Amino acid sequence: MAATDPVRNLETLIRCPSITPKEGGALTELAAMLEPLGFSIHRMVASEAGTPDIENLYARLGTSGPHLMFAGHTDVVPVGDEAAWTHPPFGAEIADGMMFGRGAVDMKGGIACFVAAVARHIEEHGAPKGSISFLITGDEEGPAINGTAKLLQWAAERGERWDACIVGEPTNPERLGDMIKIGRRGSISGTVSVHGVQGHVAYPHLADNPLRTVAAMAQSLMYPPLDHGTEQFPPTNLEVTSIDTGNAATNVIPAKATFSFNVRFNDTWSVESLKAEVLKRLDQAAADEALRPGRKAMKYTIVWSERPSHVFLTRDDALISSLSAAIEAKTGLRPALSTTGGTSDARFIKDYCPVVEFGLVGQTMHMVDERVAVRDLEDLTGIYSHFIKRWFSDASL
Amino acid sequence: MAATDPVRNLETLIRCPSITPKEGGALTELAAMLEPLGFSIHRMVASEAGTPDIENLYARLGTSGPHLMFAGHTDVVPVGDEAAWTHPPFGAEIADGMMFGRGAVDMKGGIACFVAAVARHIEEHGAPKGSISFLITGDEEGPAINGTAKLLQWAAERGERWDACIVGEPTNPERLGDMIKIGRRGSISGTVSVHGVQGHVAYPHLADNPLRTVAAMAQSLMYPPLDHGTEQFPPTNLEVTSIDTGNAATNVIPAKATFSFNVRFNDTWSVESLKAEVLKRLDQAAADEALRPGRKAMKYTIVWSERPSHVFLTRDDALISSLSAAIEAKTGLRPALSTTGGTSDARFIKDYCPVVEFGLVGQTMHMVDERVAVRDLEDLTGIYSHFIKRWFSDASL
Repeated sequence: MAATDPVRNLETLIRCPSITPKEGGALTELAAMLEPLGFSIHRMVASEAGTPDIENLYARLGTSGPHLMFAGHTDVVPVGDEAAWTHPPFGAEIADGMMFGRGAVDMKGGIACFVAAVARHIEEHGAPKGSISFLITGDEEGPAINGTAKLLQWAAERGERWDACIVGEPTNPERLGDMIKIGRRGSISGTVSVHGVQGHVAYPHLADNPLRTVAAMAQSLMYPPLDHGTEQFPPTNLEVTSIDTGNAATNVIPAKATFSFNVRFNDTWSVESLKAEVLKRLDQAAADEALRPGRKAMKYTIVWSERPSHVFLTRDDALISSLSAAIEAKTGLRPALSTTGGTSDARFIKDYCPVVEFGLVGQTMHMVDERVAVRDLEDLTGIYSHFIKRWFSDASL
Repeated sequence: MAATDPVRNLETLIRCPSITPKEGGALTELAAMLEPLGFSIHRMVASEAGTPDIENLYARLGTSGPHLMFAGHTDVVPVGDEAAWTHPPFGAEIADGMMFGRGAVDMKGGIACFVAAVARHIEEHGAPKGSISFLITGDEEGPAINGTAKLLQWAAERGERWDACIVGEPTNPERLGDMIKIGRRGSISGTVSVHGVQGHVAYPHLADNPLRTVAAMAQSLMYPPLDHGTEQFPPTNLEVTSIDTGNAATNVIPAKATFSFNVRFNDTWSVESLKAEVLKRLDQAAADEALRPGRKAMKYTIVWSERPSHVFLTRDDALISSLSAAIEAKTGLRPALSTTGGTSDARFIKDYCPVVEFGLVGQTMHMVDERVAVRDLEDLTGIYSHFIKRWFSDASL
């Protein structure tokens, strides 16, 4: 029966070399799986100056609510050192119970399982009483400018509304069932330039070394910690990621130095309050420096990253509990409800509906020999099936 | 009379384009001034793998003691933006009482005046009762590897011994007579590499950010100050001159970062004790960092500059007082006895005999439109003449 086998689905998707920004046939193959199940398919190409055009896909089954969205991406990261792979990265070969290939877990595998779960649901129970959509981008591993954000906007402008979303990213650190992501920290970056006065190192009173201020500022941003975490979130963390001067002359005090930093922040902060705190610490460090003998107030400029990620925490108990119950029923594990890790496209979806993330085991993502246990594909399909049934049942109450 | 006019002498020297490492005719012209005065001339070319050959000159008048050395250099720094000069940099044009040209004050001017002073002394008093030498290099503004150090060694191996030396560098900040240099701070540079663990900025516990340690180390080297100076010396000062990482990815914690520093140190330190203090501070900063939550001891390596300059202070009262008296007699100013500023070739000479430095006003050195007041050339010649007479008189007592 069409598309009920996640292993066949994944084999088909892996064989499409869809390295960002190339579609590689992956969305066409996905459409070919969904159309026979009754989905109406929309292909949407997003463009923006300075970035490559990206193909995206939106497919919906049903016209009424409740409306469950499955979100993800068919694009994959580059293969790296292809010669180091023990099986071809786009071969989908199975050996010792593992299927090898780029995207096996991140995240063609998650898509393959959800397609299979929907196909089985239809086979066993008929179309759900409501709607299921696939919102699939080809720009998650790239700049993410022509991807999920624009696809959501495009769909919303067409009148699409959703009640809940599950993102199929590989959320489990070690075993299928370990972890659901119920939120994500925010992320913001900045670059600070400190402007001093160049001069000969033998005449420091005629110069003003920006690196004295840079060292003080870097320390003041990293210590003390911005907070100690919350029940749902790990501590907010700031890392200075680069300090650069480019002064090769050891007898010269440089005129200028720059440093960049990134903050991963929890829901005790907003983008605005965090920016204010960073500026406060920079100003304080500059002021403290100016108080040292022979030092004066030093000017700095800051440039913030254009697209900060906002923090979010999903508080839809029904969504979380139906997914948790499905996981526990299939694996016997009670998944951790986590907000750790990097950002994901869930940061865009959270503006439209409650969103959680659950997929395969992430250990080999982005690595040579990315692979998935065939057994996990079957189990995740079972979890997704169980979840679909339970969510529509709960949502109809 | 040959060579008694410092203005003519300087004009001749400026017109030789002797940008390091080029001799440019300057030593040949100098020899042509000295030979008629009775000096025996030695031209010595120094070589070292990886550096250009350099021409040097040693000239001696007399064969007995006491023996006074005048030291300096005929090489000059590049002209910079030649179009910005109001008079040609090798033209020696005079306008509004100023002679313009590269090397006018640093330090063809000092040489021109000392040659004129010796010529006048001979004219008025005959050859001095003792010896006068010129030790002139063509590699002071360059790496200084094939210059004064090798010329001194070469002369000493030929049996040359000196009782005192005056270096004709431009020592006066504002007016002729402001300042004698009676010592120089030492100088040493180092580059520290801190080795951390690269990782994703969202998983700081899996990485180890070297920039946390770099910021702490940079601060610990610069604060607190190494000392507060002595009666003769300004405070020892350390400047971090560059911090570099080269990490363009704001979501990545870098594996490694480096920083360079330079120390100008007074005679409360030796090269060895200073290195020990730097290592102590680096170790302490690394240890303090390791005590912070989630941090561990971070490895670092340090590479020291190959040729540190040792600190020195000249304690020859007769030399200093005869020069001071000559300055005061001519200008009415009582010169400051200073140890400020950068290093000079006096750091090599101090191993052979007591050395002081006195020359023109340094304000325009290394700048566009480097220039000297014609009046200063005459006055400095008078000071040098007075000094020669007084020094030989004192030394013969």
